[in-house]
Amino acid sequence: MTILITGVAGFVGRHLVKYLNSVYPNVSIVGLDVVATTEVGKGIPGFSYTETNLLDGDAVRAILNKVKPEWIIHLASFSSVSYSWEHPSDSFLNNSLIFINLIESCRAECPSCRILSIGSSEEYGKVEDNCGLIAESNPLRPTSPYAVARVSQEMLSRVFVQGYGLDIVMTRSFNHIGPYQRDAFVVPAFVKQFVQAEKTGLKRVNLRCGDLEVIRDFTDVRDVVRAYNLILHFGERGEVYNVCSSEGRKLKDVIATLERLTGIQAELDVDRSLFRPLENHALVGDNSELRNRCGWKPEWSFEASIVEVLEYWRSAVTL
Amino acid sequence: MTILITGVAGFVGRHLVKYLNSVYPNVSIVGLDVVATTEVGKGIPGFSYTETNLLDGDAVRAILNKVKPEWIIHLASFSSVSYSWEHPSDSFLNNSLIFINLIESCRAECPSCRILSIGSSEEYGKVEDNCGLIAESNPLRPTSPYAVARVSQEMLSRVFVQGYGLDIVMTRSFNHIGPYQRDAFVVPAFVKQFVQAEKTGLKRVNLRCGDLEVIRDFTDVRDVVRAYNLILHFGERGEVYNVCSSEGRKLKDVIATLERLTGIQAELDVDRSLFRPLENHALVGDNSELRNRCGWKPEWSFEASIVEVLEYWRSAVTL
Repeated sequence: MTILITGVAGFVGRHLVKYLNSVYPNVSIVGLDVVATTEVGKGIPGFSYTETNLLDGDAVRAILNKVKPEWIIHLASFSSVSYSWEHPSDSFLNNSLIFINLIESCRAECPSCRILSIGSSEEYGKVEDNCGLIAESNPLRPTSPYAVARVSQEMLSRVFVQGYGLDIVMTRSFNHIGPYQRDAFVVPAFVKQFVQAEKTGLKRVNLRCGDLEVIRDFTDVRDVVRAYNLILHFGERGEVYNVCSSEGRKLKDVIATLERLTGIQAELDVDRSLFRPLENHALVGDNSELRNRCGWKPEWSFEASIVEVLEYWRSAVTL
Repeated sequence: MTILITGVAGFVGRHLVKYLNSVYPNVSIVGLDVVATTEVGKGIPGFSYTETNLLDGDAVRAILNKVKPEWIIHLASFSSVSYSWEHPSDSFLNNSLIFINLIESCRAECPSCRILSIGSSEEYGKVEDNCGLIAESNPLRPTSPYAVARVSQEMLSRVFVQGYGLDIVMTRSFNHIGPYQRDAFVVPAFVKQFVQAEKTGLKRVNLRCGDLEVIRDFTDVRDVVRAYNLILHFGERGEVYNVCSSEGRKLKDVIATLERLTGIQAELDVDRSLFRPLENHALVGDNSELRNRCGWKPEWSFEASIVEVLEYWRSAVTL
């Protein structure tokens, strides 16, 4: 069996390769990404890496023709909401067009392959206040160019399932955290600043931050990659699954946790440039479908996860 | 005042230019299209034409910087559903990406310009049987790559209205008919075949056709362009309006009308290649919003419109 992973060099990719190799040691894993070199998959037998730009449809098709994967896990994405506000066309191409190139190539080269299409909680966008946990049946009201591209990806998946019989299952993945996540995302951005203060011997950190009243649902990346494997096994073709902890946390509570774990006090330096043109106040998902159909439940507590993120940045930050 | 029209060389564009010139004789109209030469706007003072590929974002921005229009009517689209099934990436680029280029350029160069974004009844996609007339509040369940691109365009419009304060009004335009429509669309395709038989002196025509049970809502293109002008005047920012007759017609009834008007009998030559991977059985819109808010009502009956389409093809077809 061969599994192809796009966007393999990213945060989720490196955890996914490790996890898949641990549960399927004899499977071939083909990783694609746009970067020239990667640490991903080093020392894992059966792993191979190909540098590819998914915007090049012919290149994608040639790879699928050669590899003929049984599973594709499509992680590749320009997943920054802020970037999508600044560069909407680039964000759109590197979300929607790369996905079209992938599924068109599948249709031609490996039409019975099972594809896991990763989406985002951002697809829900504006939700009613106090609506409780967001289930998959909630309307999608995207509030950023990135979110629109993700909704498009999901609608295209359904069209290709129903119109061309492709075997696509989908996620709406909520925020995830863990080692190796870039500090362009909010939790590692905070953690890195705490660790820098710690290494300098400070007891206070001037924390650059955006809107701290925002509520998000964080899942450890290792729970996320386990969910992806389970959805590939048990997910219903053409259906979408929330991947989330079902626990909401204000960003200011994340900061309080970091204060407690480090003994360093944060002084908030609110930066309006980190506010988005439109912000979703609360995104907390209902994970019942994933639990009930796929038998998943999270194994990492938020605090255990944050401790590992701290450890990661302690080893990564040099002053 | 200056009005900019994208996709001006198309079927709707040529009617729109004529109509706008008749109601606003002193307005400057700048037409853009990707074709090298066009008959559109000939003899209309105040009309100018620029050959432009909207995929080139820099070119679009340079034009808006120069023209600074008060209104933009964005007709440009790869609007064939069939083409989108065959070439999904090309269809997506020439619907979604060109729209992003346009609104990004507006944001930079003429942020208070009012933009009319044309959408499609195809956005509704799969509707419940016997749901009656489709109102704007109906869920969108697109069933083709083209329809997904149109839904994206609408979602992007809302994001740019709410996030960047642009002034965009939208339509979901149902099928329209009239002189100059290409025979890639169903009604002119039928009419052309009847006219060819007529000119050959035949009493029967072998009519190549797809699924004739499909029900569509046809509006004369001249009623459509009147609606667009009214929506620009009275439409609410960020809102979407159905443009339709609210009358459903089976395609086989269209054929019966043509038989009656020409005295030629159709022998149906059903071509499975004209069937789509997914078909929407019935798309008949509710035009109450357009009537009530914008004061529009259709002036052309279906039969009067078809008579003109017949006349057009009688002058266009040479054997």
